[in-house]
Amino acid sequence: MKSNFLNLKKNFSIPKGTIYLCGNSLGPPLKSMGNEVKKFVDEEWAKELVKGWNSKGWFEQSKKIGNQIAKIVGADKETIIVGDTLSTQVFQALTCALKLNQNRRYVLTDNGNFPADIYIAEGLLKLLGDKHELKIVKPEDIIEHINDEVAVIMLTEADYRTGRIYDMKNITQLAHSSGALVIWDLAHTAGVVPIKLSETKADFAVGCTYKYLNGGPGSPAFIYIAPNHINKVEPALFGWHGHKNPFEFNLNYLPSSGIEKMKIGSPSIISFASLKHALDIWDNIDMNELRLKSIELSELFISEIDKLSIDLNLVSPRDPYFRGNQVSYSLENGYAFMQALIQENLIGDFRSPNLIRFGFSPLYLDEKDIINAVAIIGKVSRNSLWRKFSNQSRKIVT
Amino acid sequence: MKSNFLNLKKNFSIPKGTIYLCGNSLGPPLKSMGNEVKKFVDEEWAKELVKGWNSKGWFEQSKKIGNQIAKIVGADKETIIVGDTLSTQVFQALTCALKLNQNRRYVLTDNGNFPADIYIAEGLLKLLGDKHELKIVKPEDIIEHINDEVAVIMLTEADYRTGRIYDMKNITQLAHSSGALVIWDLAHTAGVVPIKLSETKADFAVGCTYKYLNGGPGSPAFIYIAPNHINKVEPALFGWHGHKNPFEFNLNYLPSSGIEKMKIGSPSIISFASLKHALDIWDNIDMNELRLKSIELSELFISEIDKLSIDLNLVSPRDPYFRGNQVSYSLENGYAFMQALIQENLIGDFRSPNLIRFGFSPLYLDEKDIINAVAIIGKVSRNSLWRKFSNQSRKIVT
Repeated sequence: MKSNFLNLKKNFSIPKGTIYLCGNSLGPPLKSMGNEVKKFVDEEWAKELVKGWNSKGWFEQSKKIGNQIAKIVGADKETIIVGDTLSTQVFQALTCALKLNQNRRYVLTDNGNFPADIYIAEGLLKLLGDKHELKIVKPEDIIEHINDEVAVIMLTEADYRTGRIYDMKNITQLAHSSGALVIWDLAHTAGVVPIKLSETKADFAVGCTYKYLNGGPGSPAFIYIAPNHINKVEPALFGWHGHKNPFEFNLNYLPSSGIEKMKIGSPSIISFASLKHALDIWDNIDMNELRLKSIELSELFISEIDKLSIDLNLVSPRDPYFRGNQVSYSLENGYAFMQALIQENLIGDFRSPNLIRFGFSPLYLDEKDIINAVAIIGKVSRNSLWRKFSNQSRKIVT
Repeated sequence: MKSNFLNLKKNFSIPKGTIYLCGNSLGPPLKSMGNEVKKFVDEEWAKELVKGWNSKGWFEQSKKIGNQIAKIVGADKETIIVGDTLSTQVFQALTCALKLNQNRRYVLTDNGNFPADIYIAEGLLKLLGDKHELKIVKPEDIIEHINDEVAVIMLTEADYRTGRIYDMKNITQLAHSSGALVIWDLAHTAGVVPIKLSETKADFAVGCTYKYLNGGPGSPAFIYIAPNHINKVEPALFGWHGHKNPFEFNLNYLPSSGIEKMKIGSPSIISFASLKHALDIWDNIDMNELRLKSIELSELFISEIDKLSIDLNLVSPRDPYFRGNQVSYSLENGYAFMQALIQENLIGDFRSPNLIRFGFSPLYLDEKDIINAVAIIGKVSRNSLWRKFSNQSRKIVT
């Protein structure tokens, strides 16, 4: 079955000659984005000034944009809000989840979870006086560690190293059958793998918007809480935007009903303007077609790399059903190799200790890009162009 | 002594005919701001894509912009970082402070502290298992409640209702003599009242950048930690941007040394672009001259209002030494009255139950604006123009 996905390349701003296989780290802007954020400043902030909180609906955007994301990840309306960073949302979600299961000992996660999520759990458990304990196992061992001592399972759907994806529905079911709750981090899947949050009965989910949703570097994160939990949970951060009556300025906290209780302080409205604009293209996107296209692109990439017969070891699952939107290879001198690719205008990224990663967003990539990318990889490998670069560590944000 | 402050009105974008006395809620944009954020999108995000984290220094901006703010609030270099919301920074500061004084019972604050800060304290104390207790007293009673049972005093320098300011140095000294720590919220004073954080020996400070610093609606907050505490404290949120080696992706959290340990997740870089641009004008601003000018403007306003002989009761201190940059009056039907002023293009704001507030930023206001503002207030009062508006509650973010 061939995908009918309509490539939107002409709408995105990517430097001429650059092949961008790094949307799994940071999505590119729409061509119209510069004007859009200028318009926000000139038409909203400058003209409305403080009145914009009402007249331009700034106060409501956290939920409105949340509803846009809800459509993309298969969640019901009014179950998601956006704001803050992914780390903060992990902190909020884990606090809520532990409150619901406070007599159980373990927070279970895997060593392929993005370390940021693990750090946040570590900090929260310490803050709570070590009533709970973090258990970190290998991804393939998660299922056997699900039992009635587990309070919360905290997993990222796609492993940031290998791109391997979990079967969300199956894991969630297993968790529930043991009385555990699950927090899914969708950072590496939202906007590229079809997700059905409601249908999978996920308890909590969080995600970022700067990868496949193209909101811009550090654009706000989101949090989902299942409707059956929302009235029973309480955030760690009692936010005044999440207060039932924020403008009565009472001294006592009284949470909003519904997902709005998860709002914290005054969110960056320009980052909302950017994110909202990036999300507007999703109205007409069929996630299944997009996924099919993403698989076509990554399959083509892998098979063309295979033909090169070079020393790249595929660490991503070979079966696309178990693979997200990313293909990773391990190789010695991976950092230097990636630097050489970047110099040849093929942008992917490197992850310690020896992985090079390539992401395949069908929004702005087509078969020709893949063929050209593989040609560059062949050239760098044949001519040992990577020898020019030292293997020093570098800073690039996931 | 007359201020020599150089008005920068021509640099700010405020609609023609509007008198903007609401910079205490949201500062206006610089005229160049629209182009600046467009330039960020077109020249940084679009051209550099993920490489921008290194090539454009996005990863370092939290501290660089923090250093810009440090100059404005009298702090040493490398003691402030920006990011997240003010509520999150209050949460972080209070967690750190309580860790240093964990055997004391009370967190002391006043009922003129912005409720958002109080909610955050309430939530954190609950999360910590009620080992500490929040004590809320009247501002004038704070001093008598400082004793050796107080762990942390948490105050906003300027009361959001009345504009009354505390003597930071005196309160901090009294706190220290009882072994208590102080967290100062500078939301209503940073950029308009000269602050000497280092000299006052403040332990912690937080503040927002969307009022007098003109960073834009919801632009990132900042946190200051005194150099003598920074190595002893630990944030609530173990952020991966605050990790000592974030790109080694170790599974164990290891905080950076210095203020960088307070960084959390990936910050919104477009909001940094906006904030940085707004702060660039401060290089040439003399805070003492600015303060003098702000006092001249508010004194003129009060004396002109007095001449109107209308039913407005000044609730701000009459002595400008005890007043921040804001003048508030109480009146029945305050909400409707403010709506009528706004319809006449004089923008201030309203705070429940009956306060109208006016802020006086010398950056973009001059004597003529004040005279015109008072004329509008006289007109609305004489002609009872406020009768057109109902007294319903409204939403405007402080």
